[in-house]
Amino acid sequence: MEKILKFVDEKKFIEARQELKKKNVVDIAELFEEVDKENVVKVFRVLSKDIAADVFSYMGHEQRRLIIESLTDKEISNIIEDLFIDDTVDFLEELPANVVKRVLKNASEDTRKIINQLLRYPESSAGSIMTVEYVDLKKEMTVEDAIKYIKKIGIDKETINTCYVLGDDRHLEGIVSIRKLILSDNDILIRDIIKTDFIYVNTLEDQENIAGLFKKYDLLAIPVTDNETKLVGIITIDDIVDVIDQENTEDFQKMAAMAPSDEEYLKTSVWTLAKHRIVWLLVLMISATFTGNIIKRFNDVLESVVVLTAFIPMLMDTGGNAGSQSSTLIIRGLALEEIGLKDIFKVIFKEFRVSSIVGIVLALVNFIRIYYFEKTNFLISITVCITLFFTILLAKVLGGILPIVAKKFKMDPAIMASPLITTIVDAAALIIYFSMASWLLRI
Amino acid sequence: MEKILKFVDEKKFIEARQELKKKNVVDIAELFEEVDKENVVKVFRVLSKDIAADVFSYMGHEQRRLIIESLTDKEISNIIEDLFIDDTVDFLEELPANVVKRVLKNASEDTRKIINQLLRYPESSAGSIMTVEYVDLKKEMTVEDAIKYIKKIGIDKETINTCYVLGDDRHLEGIVSIRKLILSDNDILIRDIIKTDFIYVNTLEDQENIAGLFKKYDLLAIPVTDNETKLVGIITIDDIVDVIDQENTEDFQKMAAMAPSDEEYLKTSVWTLAKHRIVWLLVLMISATFTGNIIKRFNDVLESVVVLTAFIPMLMDTGGNAGSQSSTLIIRGLALEEIGLKDIFKVIFKEFRVSSIVGIVLALVNFIRIYYFEKTNFLISITVCITLFFTILLAKVLGGILPIVAKKFKMDPAIMASPLITTIVDAAALIIYFSMASWLLRI
Repeated sequence: MEKILKFVDEKKFIEARQELKKKNVVDIAELFEEVDKENVVKVFRVLSKDIAADVFSYMGHEQRRLIIESLTDKEISNIIEDLFIDDTVDFLEELPANVVKRVLKNASEDTRKIINQLLRYPESSAGSIMTVEYVDLKKEMTVEDAIKYIKKIGIDKETINTCYVLGDDRHLEGIVSIRKLILSDNDILIRDIIKTDFIYVNTLEDQENIAGLFKKYDLLAIPVTDNETKLVGIITIDDIVDVIDQENTEDFQKMAAMAPSDEEYLKTSVWTLAKHRIVWLLVLMISATFTGNIIKRFNDVLESVVVLTAFIPMLMDTGGNAGSQSSTLIIRGLALEEIGLKDIFKVIFKEFRVSSIVGIVLALVNFIRIYYFEKTNFLISITVCITLFFTILLAKVLGGILPIVAKKFKMDPAIMASPLITTIVDAAALIIYFSMASWLLRI
Repeated sequence: MEKILKFVDEKKFIEARQELKKKNVVDIAELFEEVDKENVVKVFRVLSKDIAADVFSYMGHEQRRLIIESLTDKEISNIIEDLFIDDTVDFLEELPANVVKRVLKNASEDTRKIINQLLRYPESSAGSIMTVEYVDLKKEMTVEDAIKYIKKIGIDKETINTCYVLGDDRHLEGIVSIRKLILSDNDILIRDIIKTDFIYVNTLEDQENIAGLFKKYDLLAIPVTDNETKLVGIITIDDIVDVIDQENTEDFQKMAAMAPSDEEYLKTSVWTLAKHRIVWLLVLMISATFTGNIIKRFNDVLESVVVLTAFIPMLMDTGGNAGSQSSTLIIRGLALEEIGLKDIFKVIFKEFRVSSIVGIVLALVNFIRIYYFEKTNFLISITVCITLFFTILLAKVLGGILPIVAKKFKMDPAIMASPLITTIVDAAALIIYFSMASWLLRI
């Protein structure tokens, strides 16, 4: 980049352009991250016209805003017409309202109409991530007609790998892959090679479900239709890969008790980060009060055998960890659709057996450690180990059940992850612990 | 499926085949999950030959094993030759050695040679997930030659969307998309439309990095070359989507303190599940001993003010939750390459500010609750709230630092998630708590 900046500084624009042409558009977009604010537009203007829009679509929010704010109306208009509609919609969604207005003013009437339509779809719906640049064919065309037609219009389409066969009124009748077209003889009719059992989604379908269809059917693109199965757009795999990452990030965040957000960490403000974290922390902190109340209720047990306190952290932590292992596997299994609501009894039985094995091993190891090595009183050692066993059993079975129950009640299973399970298991572990203690130690 | 099973039972094979033909191959494969063991092969034999291998490639492990064990050598040979090599390798990897031997015996010599070669690549490497069925072109071809050639050989290729231009000795000189071919005039030479700044990987490259390249450059396929940049295979996006899910699943598992595994939960044995969970639980249980020892060391403090015990669970849980929020965001940011090693100071400063805000709010809410509502002694309330504040500060800063440090030392950042952070923060929280208590309460 230094070389290019030097060229730009010395007004050697042709050399700079030459240097940039050697690189991949994605890498050029990345290079812009290193350019100073005042130089961003200068360097952007050096890009040859045929790659400018492409580079633009791969840039970060900040750079795009800087560029749009400094370009002339004519330049904006060029970029908007060159961008694919889904990329335009993507970047308009991050811009302040007055800039959006200016961009739309410079779009052609057709483009503006489509953009406005797409901006109205709810977030995360098929409509909000689709593009309208697809190849449409007719059943009556021959393969030769179709290929001629694609040669004419294909340059402006997001993909030509799948073509869409439309009837009257843009009704979607089937799809044909470019592969099928190429491998078929020239005089064959599209109607004879059309695939009619294709997968499609409605404009309002949630992006997470769409990603599921891509995975299941190994799709490269999916048609999006309105309620009358008229084709309104397509979604391509590159956008779905982003959706998969985004949905996974949201799950990670929810499972760590945060409000989900798809903003990058380093680009999120301190206040926003704090806001996303505080609500759940408060809820969990206040829930932990119950655990404290249990301890208060068994104050007499603790006062007579203070050493019992020393094992509370170990019991709580192990219970929490055991529970979060199970809940994580189940939440993940539900997300990947490997586990369904109907499997709840299989899960309970499995967790019961797994936790029995794990519980026995951990209780034994712990007994050896605290009785033989730390010379803890025998009855106290027994109390701790029995509590440990039942805590693990309970933690794992609850960790298995709760995410499925959440799903059953149309809640997100991810909230039943580690933090919530830990809070519940902590309370249960203490009740078991003190009950065992008062019974075994006769307090 | 019932309808089809009835047809099969009544030996109405033509009707059954007709019924199956209406469905998508992926859905047919899914239907097999409902078929009894003894009927699986019967129904499989009903499938028309042109879809049998395709359906087979989408089936579960169990069904595939059942089918392979019951088919004749001739039938196996047909399927193997129809399957794409990467799917064959995939399913051979799950079969017992004697069955693998039988399958390989029935493959043609060429196929066997390639399979054996692919089976030797290390797990998760480019070589282990690539396929060898790609379209190879020559620079000297015209577009017309190329399309004619594709018409001839394309049917057996995993994808024709990207074609690979090879020089002497299979050296990879560039790539051409089918789109470029279709949109170019017939007499143009491949050499003039070839893309030479293409992205490629070595056979030993890790699949996670390859997935990163697909995401960054919006690829549909990537060429895999040996050390002399000779083309040996390609990886297509459908396999990469699986890799992304698999890598995410592994991260979820590691972050919940489990040994990673890409087997489905319901299909994993109880012993394997227990084994994957027990090691980390043991390590963490024994680490929690230190926390117990801290309590023992401060026994005199606890004995004089037993009520202090009641706040231990809340302090431990909140500290753990606060830490896991930060570590989750950082681990995820590192995985998506949004955060790098160089950002460590930015992260520390950010977490310091976020945790100050969060800590103050939580400490205040907690003070109101325990002092005003629960009428806790003033000095004890102050002790608890100051401890809470510093615990959150420490937890969040550690949660930000540890994953980056792990990455720095070439460890997987995911192990620095909730469970490990919790254990560390617990110990720290107790030390702060008891020190504050002995100082403020003058014990």
